[in-house]
Amino acid sequence: MGISITIVGEKNQADLSSVLSRAKEDLSDTIPIVKPILEAVRDRGDLAVQEFTKRFDGLEVDRFFYPVSEWKGSVPKDLQAALEKAKENILTFHSAQIPQPVDVTVSGNKLGIRYTPIESVSVYAPGGKALYPSTILMGVLPAKIAGVPHVQIVTPPQKGGLPDGLYAAAKVAGADAIITTGGAQGIGSVAYGTKTIPRSEFIIGPGNKYVTASKIYLNGLGVIGIDSPAGPSEVLVIADDSANPEWVAADLLSQAEHGEDSVAILCTDSKTLADKVALEVEKALNERPKRGEMKRESIEKHGRIFVFSNLESCVAFSNEFAPEHLEIQTKNYKELFQKIKHAGSVFLGPYSPVAMGDYISGTNHILPTAGASRIYSSLGVMTFLKRVTYQEVTQNSLEKLYPHVKVLSEFEGLDEEHGNSVKIRLPKK
Amino acid sequence: MGISITIVGEKNQADLSSVLSRAKEDLSDTIPIVKPILEAVRDRGDLAVQEFTKRFDGLEVDRFFYPVSEWKGSVPKDLQAALEKAKENILTFHSAQIPQPVDVTVSGNKLGIRYTPIESVSVYAPGGKALYPSTILMGVLPAKIAGVPHVQIVTPPQKGGLPDGLYAAAKVAGADAIITTGGAQGIGSVAYGTKTIPRSEFIIGPGNKYVTASKIYLNGLGVIGIDSPAGPSEVLVIADDSANPEWVAADLLSQAEHGEDSVAILCTDSKTLADKVALEVEKALNERPKRGEMKRESIEKHGRIFVFSNLESCVAFSNEFAPEHLEIQTKNYKELFQKIKHAGSVFLGPYSPVAMGDYISGTNHILPTAGASRIYSSLGVMTFLKRVTYQEVTQNSLEKLYPHVKVLSEFEGLDEEHGNSVKIRLPKK
Repeated sequence: MGISITIVGEKNQADLSSVLSRAKEDLSDTIPIVKPILEAVRDRGDLAVQEFTKRFDGLEVDRFFYPVSEWKGSVPKDLQAALEKAKENILTFHSAQIPQPVDVTVSGNKLGIRYTPIESVSVYAPGGKALYPSTILMGVLPAKIAGVPHVQIVTPPQKGGLPDGLYAAAKVAGADAIITTGGAQGIGSVAYGTKTIPRSEFIIGPGNKYVTASKIYLNGLGVIGIDSPAGPSEVLVIADDSANPEWVAADLLSQAEHGEDSVAILCTDSKTLADKVALEVEKALNERPKRGEMKRESIEKHGRIFVFSNLESCVAFSNEFAPEHLEIQTKNYKELFQKIKHAGSVFLGPYSPVAMGDYISGTNHILPTAGASRIYSSLGVMTFLKRVTYQEVTQNSLEKLYPHVKVLSEFEGLDEEHGNSVKIRLPKK
Repeated sequence: MGISITIVGEKNQADLSSVLSRAKEDLSDTIPIVKPILEAVRDRGDLAVQEFTKRFDGLEVDRFFYPVSEWKGSVPKDLQAALEKAKENILTFHSAQIPQPVDVTVSGNKLGIRYTPIESVSVYAPGGKALYPSTILMGVLPAKIAGVPHVQIVTPPQKGGLPDGLYAAAKVAGADAIITTGGAQGIGSVAYGTKTIPRSEFIIGPGNKYVTASKIYLNGLGVIGIDSPAGPSEVLVIADDSANPEWVAADLLSQAEHGEDSVAILCTDSKTLADKVALEVEKALNERPKRGEMKRESIEKHGRIFVFSNLESCVAFSNEFAPEHLEIQTKNYKELFQKIKHAGSVFLGPYSPVAMGDYISGTNHILPTAGASRIYSSLGVMTFLKRVTYQEVTQNSLEKLYPHVKVLSEFEGLDEEHGNSVKIRLPKK
């Protein structure tokens, strides 16, 4: 059946709506499952982590804490070089995000903002087929640039130990340690800390539904801070007849390669391009069989081509959809980009496939999904910095502003103390 | 009994710990209460809001939506002037927070960040004794500066209608409308929207436990974004023997004036100052009877004076405590401030009582409480802006970087599509 093509008109607005309201993972059934696990880890520490690791990972583990400095392994030279080049580009782009302190004079008083880092961060790295050294770099490096003193990685244990590629990425990124425990018990162990596992105040990174539910639950309790919850990966491509159909198809399939629930959407004003891309997608699914079933399921369930009457309508739909990744492959891509309101990361022109941002260009690939880019940002240096505002009021300004404080505090019924605390500082006449 | 004084030494570390671990409100019993209310509002809209308003507020209300432009009332000139001066100062300080776009060249590619605003925000304003026009300014103005197109206020209905002071603040701040429904049904109505109440994607502002539980629950479901949950207000004052004991006492009592659960702490290296402040607090409690029981309960339950052996230890304790408001009234306040890591808003020197920031100086008074300033910021322009990152890759750079993409994507098992999407864009040789 391949990827479906829809000519957008009056009749199929409901079809667009169903794509827009892509289901956010409903975690209400998962939270009651993770709650007792988290409480057990809080109350019984390492012992509970050991038990859950045996039960869920099928592994007998008696050590969870591995300082990166202890790792004596190595990786092939070309992998080492790739990690270092990625680091270099990520550093350059993210260093440009360091905010300038604010220092202004307002009504004669010095007001300002200093930025200070969070003190401890855990970067969760999923195990199995989703264990990505690139995600280690993306999570750890912005925290290091922000000045976070303690950064550790949390990831499920693996039979025979963790791959050297993971350690190499952790070392290149500058992480302190790797904690080998995953799922709810992994999140619980770093949120509460155990005898052997250091506590973190902030936890980032994608994970399965148990990880996400644990993060949300503990954040709601005020135990930890979290990044925006991650759902399935998604791309929306806006393209016109200047786009190369084979390249567009390859970009859609890149998303499909992440999992059967990945979302890949093409919005175009060209029925000709739509048809060509659909053919190329089908051709590629037949010619490139690796992860074949997963890719086909993703494309057939969540892949869509929408043919709009013009590119403006493509942009309007994209702004509603608020994609994690947005590619614009049109003649006028710069002009269209100015109209983009909501997207995690935008890839402009014919030579900017998402994979460049995933690996090497320097932008972050930990991004808001499922429409969350309408209100949340991609991971960045600011994720790990807080604004501390300050003021130094002069007695002269205090005197000038007191009449306003008096009126406002009286209106709010807080004159006796709030108002008084200013009044008693007035110059003695 | 008055405010308690503790000379800090080896023996009373447990005492410090109990103050540090001030209880975050446990909302686990409240969430099951608000869940059916939120679901009823989601499913039955205005009718459900009406029913809950009758049940919880005891009011028959048939209209919830009041455009600010419809308000034809007025307030006394001095109140109008105070609101306008506050607005002016808030605008000056918050405009300085507007971030510069990022635009850098990395490995030959243009990478950057554009900031775009959230589209719709509700500012929750508690009713009753906590109905503060100043909080309307603090919540609405940063959103307007960020460019949020739709900003509305949500507040419980009042018998005889809302006070003009609230409308005046809403108008000065530039809010679109006031929605008169409070508690869980108030949050639910703007989170889901009803026939008569516009939906908001982001909800800020303090409230009671039903409001906070509703915000946390709906945020966990992915329905809305929220600011950091607000608990009881708190101040920590660091002072030495140069401080005026009467002024310090007045500042502690300003916090106590908010409610019986407010927290007011003095850290000092001077037993003399400690004794004098304790006397001044007691004197003020007797001489200024307004809200007297509340203030006394706050001071006796949550007020503390800690005498440390030096100011460095006061700063270390403050960084652990991470106060919402921090005052530094010492000779070397500028030097000490450089060592502050975590605080919502800092007030420097003898003439900077918290009330100046609450009302008029220009900083925001919606701040992280209960230690949340270790990981969260005060409300600001950035609360309402998102980073949209972008890149425009050149074919030349794509070619140079491809070997790294190849290695990384092969290691991650994503070479067939991720790697391929770059490879097929290489120049044909």
